[in-house]
Amino acid sequence: MNNNNIKITINFEPISRRLYYAKGENIYQLLTNSGIRVRSLCGGLGTCGKCKIMVQKGNKYLNSPTDSEKTLLTPTEINENWRLACQSRIAENQISLLETQQPPQIRIFLPQELLVEDFKILTSGLNKGVSLNPNVKKLFVEVNKPNLDYPVPDLERVLISLSSKNGIIKNTNKLLVEFEALKKLPKILREENHRITITLYNNNKIIDFEAGNKVNINYGIAFDIGTTTLVGYLINLNDGKVYSVASALNPQTAYGEDVITRITYVKDNEDGLLKLNSAVVDALNDIIKKTCAKAKIKPSDICEATVVGNSVMHHIFLNIDPIYIGLSPYVPAVKRGLNLNSKDINLKISRGGKVYVLPLIAGFVGADTIGVILSSEIDKESELTLAIDVGTNGEIVLGNKDLLATASCAAGSALEGAHVKDGMRAAAGAIDSIKINPDDLTVEYTTINNKKSLGICGSGIIDAVAEMLKAKIITRSGSFNKQFIDHERIVKNDKNFEFIIVKKDETANKRDIIISQKDIRELQMAKAAFFSGARLLLNHINRTRSTKLEIKQIFLAGAFGNYINKNNAKFIGMIPDISDEKIYQIGNAAGMGAQNCLLNTNLRKKASKLLKKIDYVEIAIEKDFQRQYAEAMYFPHHNLELFPNLKEYKNIPKR
Amino acid sequence: MNNNNIKITINFEPISRRLYYAKGENIYQLLTNSGIRVRSLCGGLGTCGKCKIMVQKGNKYLNSPTDSEKTLLTPTEINENWRLACQSRIAENQISLLETQQPPQIRIFLPQELLVEDFKILTSGLNKGVSLNPNVKKLFVEVNKPNLDYPVPDLERVLISLSSKNGIIKNTNKLLVEFEALKKLPKILREENHRITITLYNNNKIIDFEAGNKVNINYGIAFDIGTTTLVGYLINLNDGKVYSVASALNPQTAYGEDVITRITYVKDNEDGLLKLNSAVVDALNDIIKKTCAKAKIKPSDICEATVVGNSVMHHIFLNIDPIYIGLSPYVPAVKRGLNLNSKDINLKISRGGKVYVLPLIAGFVGADTIGVILSSEIDKESELTLAIDVGTNGEIVLGNKDLLATASCAAGSALEGAHVKDGMRAAAGAIDSIKINPDDLTVEYTTINNKKSLGICGSGIIDAVAEMLKAKIITRSGSFNKQFIDHERIVKNDKNFEFIIVKKDETANKRDIIISQKDIRELQMAKAAFFSGARLLLNHINRTRSTKLEIKQIFLAGAFGNYINKNNAKFIGMIPDISDEKIYQIGNAAGMGAQNCLLNTNLRKKASKLLKKIDYVEIAIEKDFQRQYAEAMYFPHHNLELFPNLKEYKNIPKR
Repeated sequence: MNNNNIKITINFEPISRRLYYAKGENIYQLLTNSGIRVRSLCGGLGTCGKCKIMVQKGNKYLNSPTDSEKTLLTPTEINENWRLACQSRIAENQISLLETQQPPQIRIFLPQELLVEDFKILTSGLNKGVSLNPNVKKLFVEVNKPNLDYPVPDLERVLISLSSKNGIIKNTNKLLVEFEALKKLPKILREENHRITITLYNNNKIIDFEAGNKVNINYGIAFDIGTTTLVGYLINLNDGKVYSVASALNPQTAYGEDVITRITYVKDNEDGLLKLNSAVVDALNDIIKKTCAKAKIKPSDICEATVVGNSVMHHIFLNIDPIYIGLSPYVPAVKRGLNLNSKDINLKISRGGKVYVLPLIAGFVGADTIGVILSSEIDKESELTLAIDVGTNGEIVLGNKDLLATASCAAGSALEGAHVKDGMRAAAGAIDSIKINPDDLTVEYTTINNKKSLGICGSGIIDAVAEMLKAKIITRSGSFNKQFIDHERIVKNDKNFEFIIVKKDETANKRDIIISQKDIRELQMAKAAFFSGARLLLNHINRTRSTKLEIKQIFLAGAFGNYINKNNAKFIGMIPDISDEKIYQIGNAAGMGAQNCLLNTNLRKKASKLLKKIDYVEIAIEKDFQRQYAEAMYFPHHNLELFPNLKEYKNIPKR
Repeated sequence: MNNNNIKITINFEPISRRLYYAKGENIYQLLTNSGIRVRSLCGGLGTCGKCKIMVQKGNKYLNSPTDSEKTLLTPTEINENWRLACQSRIAENQISLLETQQPPQIRIFLPQELLVEDFKILTSGLNKGVSLNPNVKKLFVEVNKPNLDYPVPDLERVLISLSSKNGIIKNTNKLLVEFEALKKLPKILREENHRITITLYNNNKIIDFEAGNKVNINYGIAFDIGTTTLVGYLINLNDGKVYSVASALNPQTAYGEDVITRITYVKDNEDGLLKLNSAVVDALNDIIKKTCAKAKIKPSDICEATVVGNSVMHHIFLNIDPIYIGLSPYVPAVKRGLNLNSKDINLKISRGGKVYVLPLIAGFVGADTIGVILSSEIDKESELTLAIDVGTNGEIVLGNKDLLATASCAAGSALEGAHVKDGMRAAAGAIDSIKINPDDLTVEYTTINNKKSLGICGSGIIDAVAEMLKAKIITRSGSFNKQFIDHERIVKNDKNFEFIIVKKDETANKRDIIISQKDIRELQMAKAAFFSGARLLLNHINRTRSTKLEIKQIFLAGAFGNYINKNNAKFIGMIPDISDEKIYQIGNAAGMGAQNCLLNTNLRKKASKLLKKIDYVEIAIEKDFQRQYAEAMYFPHHNLELFPNLKEYKNIPKR
């Protein structure tokens, strides 16, 4: 992780990821530190030649090819700017020049074979260099032994030895001590001859004692609790690196697929909250076990966890009744960041372990949004930037260095494949990209892991609808175009039209995979929620501040936001019509925010300060809401003038 | 309780109690506020005439008899300075005069019929006026309701309402909130229309929320965990009064009667610590239930507990291994005062309840001794004062306003009736005072509750031995005097002599109640431990400070210390030979220390500061230890010059 606060971004394609480069790092390290798993046999030693990348832009800023590249790459490859990720880095003498430049001057292409198969589990995010200053530190101390002339009790001897050793704690007498830790001190102290390791929390509390020198074993875990997906990042707090990542579907899905249905479940069932709470906590404990097994450590080696999640996920995780979030005026129980004991929420890490839960903003806009703001640093951008966290619940942020505003939009879960007839999650066999030949309406598609097609995931649905528009199969209002209804791929099912994406003889379950009229309506509602939400938020800002700001840049965050074809997202009118170069897919920015708070405790203070700065807007009560939403239901919008760059629409009928 | 820091003491006889008078209080209030239960039918209204007392000294400082006294007392009674406790107080115009006087100018006699029967359960202590400033406060707040223009989360609205209402908390945003409390906030807030009561801990943490106005219900409980006895004092934190008291034998006694045998039990049994811990915690929970039932409140109405106990009782109560206290160099795990959550130690009070455990000093000298110092204010005395806490474990403190030193003495439990053939605890049927006629060796005695005699309690044993000395039945070396061995009350049992205190036809169990040679040896060891301990401590102080201080005053603390005949305690040489007027029986001073810490949180800071000031002396390693101890085995001492006032010893043979 980055200890040097330089701010050089590199764009990676085709994954549309923008990563922050840390001084001294090579590209292989940059990728793996950001959670992007890359194929390599030698682990970055420059001997296997597997980590080939191509520099598409800004080659002049990189170091010259090394001896190992000259051996492992052909002269033609070197001429075409192919490099080995582990051998290439930004040249020392270019760093100060690059720091002053915007937008990113370097673009690197990652060939498909470089990326490890399960990359589709989005666990990585934009890595803005965060310096290492964890809230939990370990200190090794050799404690004075007692004798009849020095009959000082155990804890007090520990504190005396600590104060003579360590400069960072001014008054060790004021150090608090976790009761669980105190109870085991007498035994621990005598186990390795009065040599112990102290786990220090927030520089003011001892939360654990261990026998001997255990300074090297200091881990934290950052959790992103999504409505649909849970991710845990196991991080070594001594070097700031992500040691392992594990994810799982949120088992609460069994009780309701979105936040509203889960609130309803809590309301309607006496033990509803407890069930949902146990479900998620158990799943997080499984993730802890998995990440620890991968990293070959014990769950008890984890001293702290950080957590992001939307307001409802936050409340249920904490066993706090979420029903008032679901009722007007939609207030959570608490918004401040919370410092808790892991045992109070049954998280199975170290016995004295701590949990930091990032603050909520208001209503449904939760800690995940704070995570997005922290990791994307939208609050430092000079241009007005729209950040969209595309998940089951949609949150939008509009901001720059002068202002921050946020709102929630009920995007629904169409974008994650729910409510769509052949929709499915981004798992093996899901169609994730689609092309339609406008001449004969034949369809080309790819599936995750190249398995036989089973259904369509979110990015595939957006592609399908965009391509159906381009081929004029549907009109701008989302209805099937009468002109094509006799085509063999368009069938009528119970009075409604459907378009066949994959014929049954090619699919895994021998049934047609289709996009129905209803599916298109679901997508329209979802994309309209985002677009009108952003517009209403912008109008609100301009009205209350008497400004005329415009959106100049877009950050697409979230698992789904990372995989969609951003051109098609723009084509269907989900996001404003701005140049592709200004649309960044920033990955799991919420999860990255949780990681950053684990790595640097100062970000928790920043999160608190952000709360005061953020303007929360309830867009559903904006007077223009109904009209804006209705107009945004059209592809790309009722008013084509808002999308001047989408020339294809000239030939697509409105109805 | 006393809110006015005046310092007027009144001596009460025959209970030898010195109480501090608070301005405006009448004598009835002074007694009941100090935990001394007094008979009254009208509850202090001056109508029943039952609370008669006699002013033996200093009548001129009191108010004149009131109309109700003139009605309810005879003219003779009024002439003899009989008063009604509820009608008599120190006259306003005498207060400033009295404050400058020392020693106490007022002595009041309490007739036996005034004292409520179960007075023998010593639960009261010296009440030095402590002003009311509890660590737990309750605040009633009407919280603003949310709406779509004010969509502020619950906790943040509570804090806003609190800050506008209450001046004592400067920055409510910095208030911590107990997680258990936070979880119930949404429901509580809406239960009585956004009117709630906040329980505030240490002015920096909210530990509970309740619906409606519950400001009146604010209780704390102070525990004294003795090796043998447990006492709990339920105190209303709004008025500082003791509402009820309950006591019980420490059930750990089943596993070992003193601290050493209990440490051995922990060492020898894998689940030993857990067993002893559960035993005491369960017993304290019973005491909680009992005190609450008496006061008609619920255990959950108690927000805080304070705890004193010797080092071993302290560790076992906290489930901390005590074995290193029992091994040289005798170090506890911790000495600082501890602030804990009640649920972490399974104390069944309010869910978010807190527990403050007073600090230990060193070795066996524990929180009980800090309690004694705090409540007796020995650190404010101008004369060098010896405080002895007479319990199963003996601690001594030597101090005045300039110095404080403390030591532990292995007094054993003879003084509590253990190891004594017919010894028993101070329960109904125990012989608690004895007179021997030197002419015919007949014995007069009293028993607790006037029941048929069953055995002898500690004060009876001291009386018996002192009287046996005065009647020359035994010599100064503790052996039976050959001169009397043919007397019918002296019998030989298995080669050892015994003196019959009560003949079998008068006892409850139809067996002689006797004092044996071995019993006398047990008492000698106990009294020698105290006397030599005090002497060694004094010598240590004088040597290390190059002073020649002498003990001028004695405080006898502890259940047992309160009931003994102080003249006889001096006669056997348990305490130094100073004038009776300077020997104060200060009651359960340790328990009073716990109460005072509950009433005024500043005393906790004082306890911390005391730790730095107190000189802990390991008297067993003082070079003179063996000789001092051996010399103190004699009655009253090998060296009679140390007891110049005990003229009777001239005629008592040494061997």
